Amino acid sequence: MSLVVQKYGGSSVADADSIKRVARRIVDTRKAGNQVCVVVSAMGDTTDELHDLAAAVSPAPPQRELDMLLTAGERISAALVSMAIANLGHSARSYTGSQAGVITDDVHGKARIIDITPGRVREALDAGHIVIVAGFQGVSQSTKEITTLGRGASDTTAVALAAALGADVCEIYTDVDGVFTADPRIVPTARKINRISNEEMQEMAASGAKILMLRCVEYARRFDMPIHVRSSFSHHEGTWVTDKKLEGEAVEDPIIAGVAHDRSEAKITVVGVKDKPGIAAEIFTEIAQAQINIDMIVQNVSALETGLTDVSFTLPKADAQRAVETLQAAKERIGFDQLQFDDQVGKLSLIGSGMRSHPGVSATLFRALAEQGINIEMISTSEIRVSVVTADDQLDDAVRAVHTAFGLDSSEGEAVVYGGSGR
Amino acid sequence: MSLVVQKYGGSSVADADSIKRVARRIVDTRKAGNQVCVVVSAMGDTTDELHDLAAAVSPAPPQRELDMLLTAGERISAALVSMAIANLGHSARSYTGSQAGVITDDVHGKARIIDITPGRVREALDAGHIVIVAGFQGVSQSTKEITTLGRGASDTTAVALAAALGADVCEIYTDVDGVFTADPRIVPTARKINRISNEEMQEMAASGAKILMLRCVEYARRFDMPIHVRSSFSHHEGTWVTDKKLEGEAVEDPIIAGVAHDRSEAKITVVGVKDKPGIAAEIFTEIAQAQINIDMIVQNVSALETGLTDVSFTLPKADAQRAVETLQAAKERIGFDQLQFDDQVGKLSLIGSGMRSHPGVSATLFRALAEQGINIEMISTSEIRVSVVTADDQLDDAVRAVHTAFGLDSSEGEAVVYGGSGR
Repeated sequence: MSLVVQKYGGSSVADADSIKRVARRIVDTRKAGNQVCVVVSAMGDTTDELHDLAAAVSPAPPQRELDMLLTAGERISAALVSMAIANLGHSARSYTGSQAGVITDDVHGKARIIDITPGRVREALDAGHIVIVAGFQGVSQSTKEITTLGRGASDTTAVALAAALGADVCEIYTDVDGVFTADPRIVPTARKINRISNEEMQEMAASGAKILMLRCVEYARRFDMPIHVRSSFSHHEGTWVTDKKLEGEAVEDPIIAGVAHDRSEAKITVVGVKDKPGIAAEIFTEIAQAQINIDMIVQNVSALETGLTDVSFTLPKADAQRAVETLQAAKERIGFDQLQFDDQVGKLSLIGSGMRSHPGVSATLFRALAEQGINIEMISTSEIRVSVVTADDQLDDAVRAVHTAFGLDSSEGEAVVYGGSGR
Repeated sequence: MSLVVQKYGGSSVADADSIKRVARRIVDTRKAGNQVCVVVSAMGDTTDELHDLAAAVSPAPPQRELDMLLTAGERISAALVSMAIANLGHSARSYTGSQAGVITDDVHGKARIIDITPGRVREALDAGHIVIVAGFQGVSQSTKEITTLGRGASDTTAVALAAALGADVCEIYTDVDGVFTADPRIVPTARKINRISNEEMQEMAASGAKILMLRCVEYARRFDMPIHVRSSFSHHEGTWVTDKKLEGEAVEDPIIAGVAHDRSEAKITVVGVKDKPGIAAEIFTEIAQAQINIDMIVQNVSALETGLTDVSFTLPKADAQRAVETLQAAKERIGFDQLQFDDQVGKLSLIGSGMRSHPGVSATLFRALAEQGINIEMISTSEIRVSVVTADDQLDDAVRAVHTAFGLDSSEGEAVVYGGSGR
């Protein structure tokens, strides 16, 4: 008998009808001869409504109490899914994160999972029950307090629980058919990816693909847990996130997995700094001390006559104001002319593990953008990724152009094997 | 430093404004130099809304899952009250029933408290925090499952917790000023009672007075915990439920504490049973085996010519249908002519520990009803209570007549000491 862990997001359990549909799906999986453990998010807007209630009694509620409040959301959906399953004649048991053994650190609001001790879940499964676990929550190891893992972290709960239970697969149900070669809202010809490697999915998630949380993919990779991302509204096969080839899959991997984009970052340029060793260290030490994570960094070649250069970096828009204030406060010590701030930027990332062995990917990317008259403001690369920053209003055109240039459009069938020169 | 346990019901925490008002009240109690532990019910209609959600996914949800669902209600209100207190600059911690050490049996939906192990609450109080406990819930001793104590049982949680913590008083906040000599909606001249003994309050609760749950009063009596029932909408003194006289209180207790009424029962009459030993045992063994609790029982004198008699009893309306079916099924064995069923009845109860030493109370009661032309269908008495069953549509008149006859109307000042003859 296989053990399947399933995770249903908020839109899949938005109302009573959705919950009944999800229950049928869970029961079908059970009837097919599997043990089933399900992780659920809160119903539709519940979390937002609870946030509104909190805001109505306090402008800055303590995070411990906020966790106490918000965890009610998944508790409610877990109990309801369990009832709907019982109504179909199957036995189900709902558990809170704490009861399910989701042990976290004590950082309320964005706790990290330290360990999973799923003794009660295991017992219930072995006793023949379907188990429903409230996602997004756990209990802290040191203080025994209720914690939340941060929004969207039910995926991570599911993968971690699947790993701890030794499940055969972790199915992540969502409202789309799987992972696409690009966001179908921007690229109508985007194709569903049948399989993507862990490494590629990790880069996709880190580059703005919202379908899976980065931390969830990291977990899956670490524990070698196959993820199947699929729609709760259809019975189509979705996307497998695994390094193991699917049956009938071509021997040679496609070079490019997909194109991700990200509009959540802003760009700051420190203009007119001395081009001398240690200057970047000074700037980014200030930023790091303010607890701000940065993404890309670019330093221009200095102008010969002045010996001055510019340093640009990208960071989450939410942190931009704070970063500017931090740097202004350190202006004398760092020594620069001025700061430029731009939040009208977007980032395009081309991801594919085939890049390692196929040169010319970057050149094709730049040519495709140039042909559309799109200016590249920053470039950064990793082993299996090329990212560029463009103006926000050119980003959609950029994504479409690159998607086409690499033969990812669905009318062209499977992605072509590209052979260019010079990356 | 005194320790005060307070309990706020659903109407006291119905919305954000109410929660903020309750928070101010709690903080005032803290500022007055007390340690404060608060038990809260779910906000206004939350429990009903959660019941509706459950009904939408299953016509008969498993009780375990219903408990999982419903306990979210008090969790939400506890967290919100805690946040509102923090916003007033005081430190508060909310705890679930399970975290607060409310240990119950494993009867989901109407669990009984077995023990309270308030270690975490004690620690938090000693660390200077105000503690907020989600009422109505606990964790079962044997199965470690989340249980609910049944609706309205947050009062019981408060009293039990107060007893376990060795509190000085348990304040039960509600939307009226205290316990009245009769329901003020029926008797506009009803007076607020300043103090009532545990025994009297127990009879009042058992006789339909809804202000305190019977089980809560039993607990208070067992642990000798003074209860102060008062309004969360005013700062008036409420009603003290305690056997200890208040300062300045008269040495002699009033004979009558108050008049309670109850419309929740129905009457069943078993017509034409043989008047022989054991017949009542047969009838009520059947009823008991169907897990139905009965209240009053009356057996008529048998008619000499037939040797047949009638047996009447009252029971909760909700159980009446089942009781009728049970008896019909046993008709041959018991041997009776027919069953009569009446759910248009009401019960009036006159309560007062002074009855013990003052004869004539029953006679005055019957005379008062007779003067209003009200027919008495059944009578039952205890040491400190006389109850009569009347037609439902005569019950309000009956309550008013009796209230006046015993000098309880507020225009007449304190209750008169009654001296009649022959009870």
